[in-house]
Amino acid sequence: MSKFWSDVVHKLTPYVPGEQPKLDNLVKLNTNENPYGPSPKVIEALKLEAADSLRLYPDPNSDALKLAIAETYQLKSNQVFVGNGSDEVLAHVFQALLKHDKPLLYPDITYSFYPVYCGLYGIQYQLIPLAKDFTINVEDYMQPNGGIIFPNPNAPTGIPLALTEIERLLQKNTESVVVIDEAYVDFGTESAVTLINKYPNLLVTHTLSKARSLAGLRVGYALGSPELIEALTRVKDSFNSYPIDRFASAGAIAAMQDTVYFEKTCKQVVATRKGLIHDLMNLGFEVLPSGANFIFAKHQSRDGAELTNLLREKSIIVRHFKTPKRIAPYIRVTIGTDAQSKLLIEALAEILQ
Amino acid sequence: MSKFWSDVVHKLTPYVPGEQPKLDNLVKLNTNENPYGPSPKVIEALKLEAADSLRLYPDPNSDALKLAIAETYQLKSNQVFVGNGSDEVLAHVFQALLKHDKPLLYPDITYSFYPVYCGLYGIQYQLIPLAKDFTINVEDYMQPNGGIIFPNPNAPTGIPLALTEIERLLQKNTESVVVIDEAYVDFGTESAVTLINKYPNLLVTHTLSKARSLAGLRVGYALGSPELIEALTRVKDSFNSYPIDRFASAGAIAAMQDTVYFEKTCKQVVATRKGLIHDLMNLGFEVLPSGANFIFAKHQSRDGAELTNLLREKSIIVRHFKTPKRIAPYIRVTIGTDAQSKLLIEALAEILQ
Repeated sequence: MSKFWSDVVHKLTPYVPGEQPKLDNLVKLNTNENPYGPSPKVIEALKLEAADSLRLYPDPNSDALKLAIAETYQLKSNQVFVGNGSDEVLAHVFQALLKHDKPLLYPDITYSFYPVYCGLYGIQYQLIPLAKDFTINVEDYMQPNGGIIFPNPNAPTGIPLALTEIERLLQKNTESVVVIDEAYVDFGTESAVTLINKYPNLLVTHTLSKARSLAGLRVGYALGSPELIEALTRVKDSFNSYPIDRFASAGAIAAMQDTVYFEKTCKQVVATRKGLIHDLMNLGFEVLPSGANFIFAKHQSRDGAELTNLLREKSIIVRHFKTPKRIAPYIRVTIGTDAQSKLLIEALAEILQ
Repeated sequence: MSKFWSDVVHKLTPYVPGEQPKLDNLVKLNTNENPYGPSPKVIEALKLEAADSLRLYPDPNSDALKLAIAETYQLKSNQVFVGNGSDEVLAHVFQALLKHDKPLLYPDITYSFYPVYCGLYGIQYQLIPLAKDFTINVEDYMQPNGGIIFPNPNAPTGIPLALTEIERLLQKNTESVVVIDEAYVDFGTESAVTLINKYPNLLVTHTLSKARSLAGLRVGYALGSPELIEALTRVKDSFNSYPIDRFASAGAIAAMQDTVYFEKTCKQVVATRKGLIHDLMNLGFEVLPSGANFIFAKHQSRDGAELTNLLREKSIIVRHFKTPKRIAPYIRVTIGTDAQSKLLIEALAEILQ
């Protein structure tokens, strides 16, 4: 605490990201990174950027990147906003679109950055409890609100919500913005992007950190009506003219364009997930249905924190959430390669002996 | 205007950066980029990052980069904050350290992003007029305030302020944060970094976009007491866990470490500046004293806007500021190579014939 700090700083409870250990030889299944590297075409494009032209600013509007993203979804460039990772995009979304007199609604169990953004921008919110089976019930969101946000699939549960349910919510909720945070959508969840031209209050956020294998490059984007995108652009242009550096732009464009590689690696992750769920169930785990590149699993007799610690002793890192209490029995496991799944299952078999 | 926008969005007047034209063959002297590319060691380090490891998140705390910066200035890592360009760093500074009951003070003629940040975060401010000769008089800042910020050298004038004056201000102003924005300091202005261990309320911001030739990479940093740095870190960790991507980190580390290249290119820019000022004076320009990689110059009989337009017709881009009115007669010219200076002088000679 310090007299030099602005008031807001005293009140902040910053987000704590999953550990990024500096040791090698770990089986790192804690931050939902892709086990496969980026497309070779991305690597090629990135190498070209290591050049004299770095002395020049990048395009402040990232027009080429917006176009590549727009083309991917048959949208227009003015329906695309880009940022330094989807966390930055979400920060701007909270400030630009979700601060109103009525409270923002989001699930009680969800991405734990949401309450942090609310703290940073002084946004009042109301937690909507998930159902007993950890699903989102859209009926619960049909009440006065200043905005609605949830991930689909939800985090850290991984449970997908059907597109028909999202559309049902949009039909009833026309006066505030509905944000669907689709960080993990490409691993088998239906995207709401197809509804964008129908609902001017729908905003969909994506990241290149997961399905596009570029967590190290920091690019995320939002898709929505020009009206919503303009609000984000105004905030961005009042914050940082050039958030997307030359590498981020070139790499992200190449990643959006290499659909073949993208689909192949996503399919592989989904196949590995299927095998892992099967093996975990054989070991006595209950696994929530997953539309993501991670699974959320609870053992019939062993505690989540304990399993996390025992796995760590065997150099395997998974993620455990102490709160809320309902999810404390669970471990969240990123889908890695088949070989990593095998190591995990072997380690768990030993632990559970 | 839209019912979906948060209140703050309606009130924003975003910053407008200098034009980044998409045409080739321009003599681009409008955004103070370095005419020399980054160090060959930077290019080498960057090439190594175009690899499979991009699938992994970068270090959220940028420890290696902070250490490289700390070592450059004989400071400790907890005296260093890093961000996605010094504009992002400044945004966090305004939110974390400059929002108080009393008004923030800054010059009436200065970096035009400052009022934009104030608008974004609802910070009240008071403009302190520059002296008639466009210098900053520190006496004018010795009044109740919630913070003080100015660039040194100032922008867009380029005029440096002596370190003794800054220390005089710090001695009198102990109850609020004093931010010295040293984006251009390496081109012949005395840095206030040497005062950091003496004044816990001093924060100095730097960028790698100018003297380190890395505008395209987006890295900036702040140096100050651990108390001030912690406020910035709290805000950053409530906004975006990973603002520094793997390229930005690797390139910035290499740039900080190649002191020889850095000093050589800075010296060359300063030498070119000297020649350009001499030639401009011969053409009837009055040039303000510059400690930056740009000069601010007024012709004895021709208007700044007119000259800017006529130069553009000859494919030379300089920057002109319409407001405040006092600076409208001036043009701001980035120091390029000697060859670019020659092209500029030839073009101006033709125009002024």
